[in-house]
Amino acid sequence: MKILILGMDGYIGWSLALHQWEKGNKVCGIDNFSRRRNVEEVGSWSATPILPIKHRLEILKKKYGDKIVFYEGDLTQPEISSDVIRKFQPDGIVHLAEQPSAPYSMIDQEHAAYTQQNNVLGTLNLLYAIKTYSPKTHLVKLGTMGEYGTPELDIPEGFFEVEYRGKKSTIPYPRLAGSWYHWSKVHDSNNTMFACKLWELRSTDIMQGVVYGTRTNEINGEHLHTRFDFDEVFGTAINRFCAQAVIGHPLTIYGKGGQTRGFLALEDSIQCISLLLDNPPEKGEYKVVNQFDEQYQVSELADRVKRIGDKKGLQVQVERIENPRVEKEEHYYKADHQKLKDLGFKPTRHIDDQINIMLDDLSANKQRILEKKKAIVQSMKWRGKPTIQPHVS
Amino acid sequence: MKILILGMDGYIGWSLALHQWEKGNKVCGIDNFSRRRNVEEVGSWSATPILPIKHRLEILKKKYGDKIVFYEGDLTQPEISSDVIRKFQPDGIVHLAEQPSAPYSMIDQEHAAYTQQNNVLGTLNLLYAIKTYSPKTHLVKLGTMGEYGTPELDIPEGFFEVEYRGKKSTIPYPRLAGSWYHWSKVHDSNNTMFACKLWELRSTDIMQGVVYGTRTNEINGEHLHTRFDFDEVFGTAINRFCAQAVIGHPLTIYGKGGQTRGFLALEDSIQCISLLLDNPPEKGEYKVVNQFDEQYQVSELADRVKRIGDKKGLQVQVERIENPRVEKEEHYYKADHQKLKDLGFKPTRHIDDQINIMLDDLSANKQRILEKKKAIVQSMKWRGKPTIQPHVS
Repeated sequence: MKILILGMDGYIGWSLALHQWEKGNKVCGIDNFSRRRNVEEVGSWSATPILPIKHRLEILKKKYGDKIVFYEGDLTQPEISSDVIRKFQPDGIVHLAEQPSAPYSMIDQEHAAYTQQNNVLGTLNLLYAIKTYSPKTHLVKLGTMGEYGTPELDIPEGFFEVEYRGKKSTIPYPRLAGSWYHWSKVHDSNNTMFACKLWELRSTDIMQGVVYGTRTNEINGEHLHTRFDFDEVFGTAINRFCAQAVIGHPLTIYGKGGQTRGFLALEDSIQCISLLLDNPPEKGEYKVVNQFDEQYQVSELADRVKRIGDKKGLQVQVERIENPRVEKEEHYYKADHQKLKDLGFKPTRHIDDQINIMLDDLSANKQRILEKKKAIVQSMKWRGKPTIQPHVS
Repeated sequence: MKILILGMDGYIGWSLALHQWEKGNKVCGIDNFSRRRNVEEVGSWSATPILPIKHRLEILKKKYGDKIVFYEGDLTQPEISSDVIRKFQPDGIVHLAEQPSAPYSMIDQEHAAYTQQNNVLGTLNLLYAIKTYSPKTHLVKLGTMGEYGTPELDIPEGFFEVEYRGKKSTIPYPRLAGSWYHWSKVHDSNNTMFACKLWELRSTDIMQGVVYGTRTNEINGEHLHTRFDFDEVFGTAINRFCAQAVIGHPLTIYGKGGQTRGFLALEDSIQCISLLLDNPPEKGEYKVVNQFDEQYQVSELADRVKRIGDKKGLQVQVERIENPRVEKEEHYYKADHQKLKDLGFKPTRHIDDQINIMLDDLSANKQRILEKKKAIVQSMKWRGKPTIQPHVS
């Protein structure tokens, strides 16, 4: 198979590329390196030292040879996806090339507009490129469980059957996102659903939970590490807690910590995406899958990191801080995640083992985290005036 | 009251401004004149000759004096809405400044991207400007009934209560739009709903039906006419049929003509918007109203125009042409429109009278329509390659 990965320099993009090469597939990547720049802008960097992608690809060329193709480019320029898709004719495209941080989108007007413009136009250009140059290609698009928000109902996988005034119909499940970033993903899901109907494209839209971990089957040597963000803006719950534990910073829980979300180990995320690539939907089909392993409350995750960290002598503290977000701190949450299981997905990692490995990997990079310690708690507020001052404009 | 009208040079914007001045309100307008340019691009113009807005405002200055304020500007530039809202401090803002044509958005990739970028970023900038400089201001935003598409269920006004797996909740009604334009309006509705929650703004989002007619109470002299589009790209159903009837061109029905939509006379649209301005929602409230008078099938409208036109000796023909759109040609359609009635809205115009007046007004401008006759049927197709060649790039 030929796989095109958009956003190959990112956390999941790089891990997925390694796995796909190892499977024997030809993998082409595109990245504009905005993630590196945006993380630098908020005063941080990857906890794991990551070489520039071209150096990493050089190392891998010895093993995978001409199965490696890479282009630097920005999807908001329509010719990028058009040119690459026309030339490469991928069987599957994995779209990870969106600005992925909710807090980043909430910094101020400029960052909100950048996020929505980058994500909506990049995806729209991609849809046109697929339609024009490779309409049979399967688009695997990364959405987020955050598109659904926290409704008072069970969350199905994209669609649900309702009865209303005596008539029944299966309709899209409403989205109640909670940031400009999350809404940009909803807009992209809607545009993609429409493109499948309009042009008979095929797409799997992944509503993914929060991904954690430093390792996959293929990431076993330091030069192959994927990026790992731990700052308040780009770091996600478990990963940030582990970085805090390693440097002796209290684990910062927002408010009551009763927020429930779905979580997934990095290796299992790669397994799921690969499984979806191997199972394209029919022509014209827009398929939504919820991709996570287990649901946890944020305070429960902190307790796990504390327990495992304490065993390693890290003396982990937990601190409740004022919630900068506009979200419910306790709520009903029950989301389906059956479709991937039906395709054969079996989780391969246990969260406690992954926390254990993460704490070790991050301890080896403790100095890098300490050097950007200020970025861990910047206490920006989503409702008030921005308190993050971009370090690079 | 102080009212800010975004898109004041447009069909509804101009009619609304006249009504608001006549009511004694101070009205400020912004427009970037993109509508004039975009209609010219597809080879057409307004059937009613319309003076440049500055000339029209000069004429009105004698009557309304300093109640008239106007700025030329483009909402995708963030400083435009910021500066005007900071200075003018409006009580209500009516947002009509979006690229309003579904066919225009479907011409090609460039027009799709332009439509979504223009509408989404313009609205996002507007929301930030309101939050920053005038958070109590009531935003009346123009959405469209087309956001709902044609689901198999009754269409409520924005939200509905459902029972799902034993739990009940009131949630946003799903949107099933049918063009890049319609989806841009859905994205804007979602962003506006979120802004109301996040920043406690107040907004009324109008899901408006198709508006028809040449006249309002205030439009009674030729120099006050609002624009009237009759081309395939910017003209809407009844208006286009009337223009076709006047020049002896068959009324072109797409496919079976069983498409049902809600319709509303121009004067009644102005009445509704004004009523909504007088009834702002609570702080933090996002209110959706469905704004139309009656539902009609497209073929029934053609029959009405034929019947009334024939009485005037126009010998109207009706022709069924291949449907360029991707839409159901026969479908269930039953939409609520109660909220405006509850506020006191009473339709003041009958469709047959309006068709009668329109045919007279358009007969007076028959030469202008004939001159752009080619723009009436350009037969662009939404699924295939673009067949419209932009006349001005």
